[in-house]
Amino acid sequence: MNVSADIRALVERRKAGYSLEAPFYLSEEIFALDMEAIFRKHWVQVAVEPDVPEPGDYVTVELGHDSILIVRDDDMQIRAFHNVCRHRGARLCNADKGTVGNIVCPYHSWTYNLNGDLMFAEHMGEKFDRCKHSLKSVHVENLAGLIFVCLAGEPPTDFAAMRAAMEPYLLPHNLADTKVAAQIDVLEKGNWKLTMENNRECYHCVANHPELTISLYEYGFGYQRSPANAEGMEAFDRTCIERAAEWEAMGLPSAEIEQLLDTTGFRTQRLPLDRSGESQTLDARVASKKLLGKFEQADLGGLSFWTQPNSWHHFMSDHIVTFSVIPLSAGETLVRTKWLVHKDAREGVDYDVKNLTAVWNATNDQDRALVEYSQCGAGSSAYEPGPYSPFTEGLVEKFSAWYIGRLAEQIGA
Amino acid sequence: MNVSADIRALVERRKAGYSLEAPFYLSEEIFALDMEAIFRKHWVQVAVEPDVPEPGDYVTVELGHDSILIVRDDDMQIRAFHNVCRHRGARLCNADKGTVGNIVCPYHSWTYNLNGDLMFAEHMGEKFDRCKHSLKSVHVENLAGLIFVCLAGEPPTDFAAMRAAMEPYLLPHNLADTKVAAQIDVLEKGNWKLTMENNRECYHCVANHPELTISLYEYGFGYQRSPANAEGMEAFDRTCIERAAEWEAMGLPSAEIEQLLDTTGFRTQRLPLDRSGESQTLDARVASKKLLGKFEQADLGGLSFWTQPNSWHHFMSDHIVTFSVIPLSAGETLVRTKWLVHKDAREGVDYDVKNLTAVWNATNDQDRALVEYSQCGAGSSAYEPGPYSPFTEGLVEKFSAWYIGRLAEQIGA
Amino acid sequence: MNVSADIRALVERRKAGYSLEAPFYLSEEIFALDMEAIFRKHWVQVAVEPDVPEPGDYVTVELGHDSILIVRDDDMQIRAFHNVCRHRGARLCNADKGTVGNIVCPYHSWTYNLNGDLMFAEHMGEKFDRCKHSLKSVHVENLAGLIFVCLAGEPPTDFAAMRAAMEPYLLPHNLADTKVAAQIDVLEKGNWKLTMENNRECYHCVANHPELTISLYEYGFGYQRSPANAEGMEAFDRTCIERAAEWEAMGLPSAEIEQLLDTTGFRTQRLPLDRSGESQTLDARVASKKLLGKFEQADLGGLSFWTQPNSWHHFMSDHIVTFSVIPLSAGETLVRTKWLVHKDAREGVDYDVKNLTAVWNATNDQDRALVEYSQCGAGSSAYEPGPYSPFTEGLVEKFSAWYIGRLAEQIGA
Repeated sequence: MNVSADIRALVERRKAGYSLEAPFYLSEEIFALDMEAIFRKHWVQVAVEPDVPEPGDYVTVELGHDSILIVRDDDMQIRAFHNVCRHRGARLCNADKGTVGNIVCPYHSWTYNLNGDLMFAEHMGEKFDRCKHSLKSVHVENLAGLIFVCLAGEPPTDFAAMRAAMEPYLLPHNLADTKVAAQIDVLEKGNWKLTMENNRECYHCVANHPELTISLYEYGFGYQRSPANAEGMEAFDRTCIERAAEWEAMGLPSAEIEQLLDTTGFRTQRLPLDRSGESQTLDARVASKKLLGKFEQADLGGLSFWTQPNSWHHFMSDHIVTFSVIPLSAGETLVRTKWLVHKDAREGVDYDVKNLTAVWNATNDQDRALVEYSQCGAGSSAYEPGPYSPFTEGLVEKFSAWYIGRLAEQIGA
Repeated sequence: MNVSADIRALVERRKAGYSLEAPFYLSEEIFALDMEAIFRKHWVQVAVEPDVPEPGDYVTVELGHDSILIVRDDDMQIRAFHNVCRHRGARLCNADKGTVGNIVCPYHSWTYNLNGDLMFAEHMGEKFDRCKHSLKSVHVENLAGLIFVCLAGEPPTDFAAMRAAMEPYLLPHNLADTKVAAQIDVLEKGNWKLTMENNRECYHCVANHPELTISLYEYGFGYQRSPANAEGMEAFDRTCIERAAEWEAMGLPSAEIEQLLDTTGFRTQRLPLDRSGESQTLDARVASKKLLGKFEQADLGGLSFWTQPNSWHHFMSDHIVTFSVIPLSAGETLVRTKWLVHKDAREGVDYDVKNLTAVWNATNDQDRALVEYSQCGAGSSAYEPGPYSPFTEGLVEKFSAWYIGRLAEQIGA
Repeated sequence: MNVSADIRALVERRKAGYSLEAPFYLSEEIFALDMEAIFRKHWVQVAVEPDVPEPGDYVTVELGHDSILIVRDDDMQIRAFHNVCRHRGARLCNADKGTVGNIVCPYHSWTYNLNGDLMFAEHMGEKFDRCKHSLKSVHVENLAGLIFVCLAGEPPTDFAAMRAAMEPYLLPHNLADTKVAAQIDVLEKGNWKLTMENNRECYHCVANHPELTISLYEYGFGYQRSPANAEGMEAFDRTCIERAAEWEAMGLPSAEIEQLLDTTGFRTQRLPLDRSGESQTLDARVASKKLLGKFEQADLGGLSFWTQPNSWHHFMSDHIVTFSVIPLSAGETLVRTKWLVHKDAREGVDYDVKNLTAVWNATNDQDRALVEYSQCGAGSSAYEPGPYSPFTEGLVEKFSAWYIGRLAEQIGA
């Protein structure tokens, strides 16, 4: 991909500690570069194992112009293919999800098995070689039930390091044994990086997220100490230490791991929740009576897992919320949220969907508005990069620095 | 029109027998070239004579950015003009169809007669020369009631050859004495060439068109012979020979003419219909009791007429269905379908619109979906041209070869 | 801004007395140049004083990609700022209008006073300099209650000349003591210059504006004299002279001032109204019983004020109608109309909104259609610039000549 001199200059002069220059949020040319350098080169979280619980179950995911078919094979392996017929290119599966025996093209009935092999194609004559017309596969990884794909020919190899670090944190929540109780797509009229920057700080939480801050401590994501908050921050620090010790004793790792500048960048930490301290709900109590994994107690705080470039997830004792960000254009982004509960939890008995989703539905919509205000502002001739707070926006800087670094590597800047 | 080196290379390396490379379906630059090289240089079928039965009747047709006014003059001639006032360029007729005495601009009442002469323009002073401000005309041809326009200064001269070949086939159906019983526009989110490719094969019919295949023989458009279908294909071949002989004896030519690679490319053939064999309806019986022309029997099969670049038509004993394809953008195409019955047929007595339109309404919508699946697939990074079936997709290849040939001529490749 | 050779050639070869070549109406590149050379360099009328009657009242105006915040300060001064936070660029005020104490960013609560100074920003650390993060101001002028902004660093200095000429005409109507009784935005699918050209002639009025021509004399904006209209035109001329003498005697200047080719181009004239002659209403009588300013009689005709590039206004004895044109894209334009009545007039008692707005609501919609017909026509390959009437379109030519002159100055043609 050729890159204009303008883009090269923008990447090279990016000033650490400041928001990005406007073209990074507005330019369709940079958006195309983002899709190439970020979303086609890195591991992208797009689905969860309970999306495809049984053999033949599939989901389709649109990533840029690519449609990816994620399917569970009869041997229970999860596979991913380009969702494109090898005949005249028709999209094969045209629903968001479903169940199939074989993958049959709707156009001329070319038929592939769940391993991607072309089994049947009528009228093609004797010279036609079926073996040369298998579906094209896509790299896929399953990390404790979170499904990542990579469109690159050679995916980043440090996924293994993330897996090694994260499995001890994630596996106790046993995502593989959950079900998707609710899923909502939010369309944000803003650049995907504004969505990610918004996710990487809680400076905006107090003024914007009344529902979320019921359970989320305002101090948990960086604050400048002041006389007004000194007492609260010290109490929070003490709580963190006490609870972390308890959790570690139960075999639940809690300490922060921060590898955000790795190629496959990520961060994790388990933090206490406020009030009853059980879950991210309107009363901070569990939303599902059926606890996950082998948990016997509800107040396990919130284990968060953030990944570059496009996801974050909150694991609690009773449910998990996953967020996958899908860029659509320079000015449009999809945020897909899934709420997972124990697969045996009964709706209306063990959990209520409205209660389960109340906090993040409200929070997502508030964040959507903030992203849209930022997108509007970035378009102004008066916009110039402003300073990140050294106390509350350190992880925003890590996102922007990672992003610029990945672009620089792509274009050789 | 300048053409980038990329497009030149794409045209030159096109591989016969395979679907086109993705940019031919996706690129707005190639779309602009298509409009220039194909739709502004060739005869394009856009209307039918019964659209304008009486003097002063007009229809407007949008072709690219041009609005074309097709009007019947007082001498019963059909004329075509650019639908643009010579004063400040306002569009003159702003409805799809209507009836006028003169053509009066809605802006400042400049008034043209049906011959395009400016008759009246107020306040323009003594020096103004009305004769220099006539409407600009557009070339128009009427082939047995099918109206074609050509935006080129010098239209292709081989229209005459098509007329000579086709009039004996078409005139017996007497389209000029029909009326438009129904018209429907379908918007397909796909490139116009996918619409045309879809039209040029029936490989997809069995799996997709349950209504159409009631009357349409699956064997009529090319099949690879196999033990499973050998008996059926042989029976069909016998039927074709028998019926063609009958029809020829009645003065109805039936043999295939295939001139698809001509500048004004076309193909025709009269084929038997299945079951009661009368018409393309849900019971294969006539939809209108009032037969066309001087026909006295209903089972005359289906006479089809396909043209490059944008139309196909089915003529039966009782009704005619015409299809005109209008590209809107690289990824959007309009398919305009008209159902014509004898002008004296009475709705509710001789025919029922729902019954008349049932087969092709369903079929059009099925084809729309297939075109859209193909458009989605062409956008994928995994798409590559796939092989056409040598048995069932020979006419698709003829369309693609014609198209590439016309482009090559335009750009001198 | 670099300008392609094509645009330079188009500007240089523009033929006086003819409508503009098609790219001036269609090209997004020329639209960007229009925004730069016209709308970012000139005084643009965007609001009225009664939009912000009290301290803390604000309106936001979108001009190109810029959002401008117009606010009345506690000292009653009207100020204008870029509506963009200096932190991470969020848009500050996200409603069309409202009232604030300070300007608080919705994202992280950065707080500015009405003078634009940053008063408060949490968590920014000791080194952060608030003084370097004030809001960026925008030049603003208030001409007899009409608010103009200019995005240029150095606005045109001839605003003072327009003020000196216009205040004697406008001040007697005391716009500052009115209120906005109604406001309507009309989206026109046409280029902003077609909207302006339409505004600069009444050649189209008789055929298109039955409501407006109840009160507006058809002769008031230029007509070619003919036997059919000679008597009417002479009567109109006599009326003009008689009424102008009366109005001048009352201290109401009425004579035409025409400075349309100035950088800050404008024109004004007070003309009689037809029939009862009081106001632009369906019965030509006042729409509001409470007359403006110190007026004691209703039949003061219509004082019109036209400005380059984007506004026109009609001042009558009882109400004022203001029109502000905001380009949105090459093919989309917003026309914002406000109806102002005396601030003490009571709705339902002194005036009825439906009656007040009837004429211009109808007229605006008729003009919208005409602009859209012109935009459609400009896109046609058959479009070529047509001749302006020397009698009725002289002011259209003045608009086009001013526009081309401003472009030529910008690009050095």
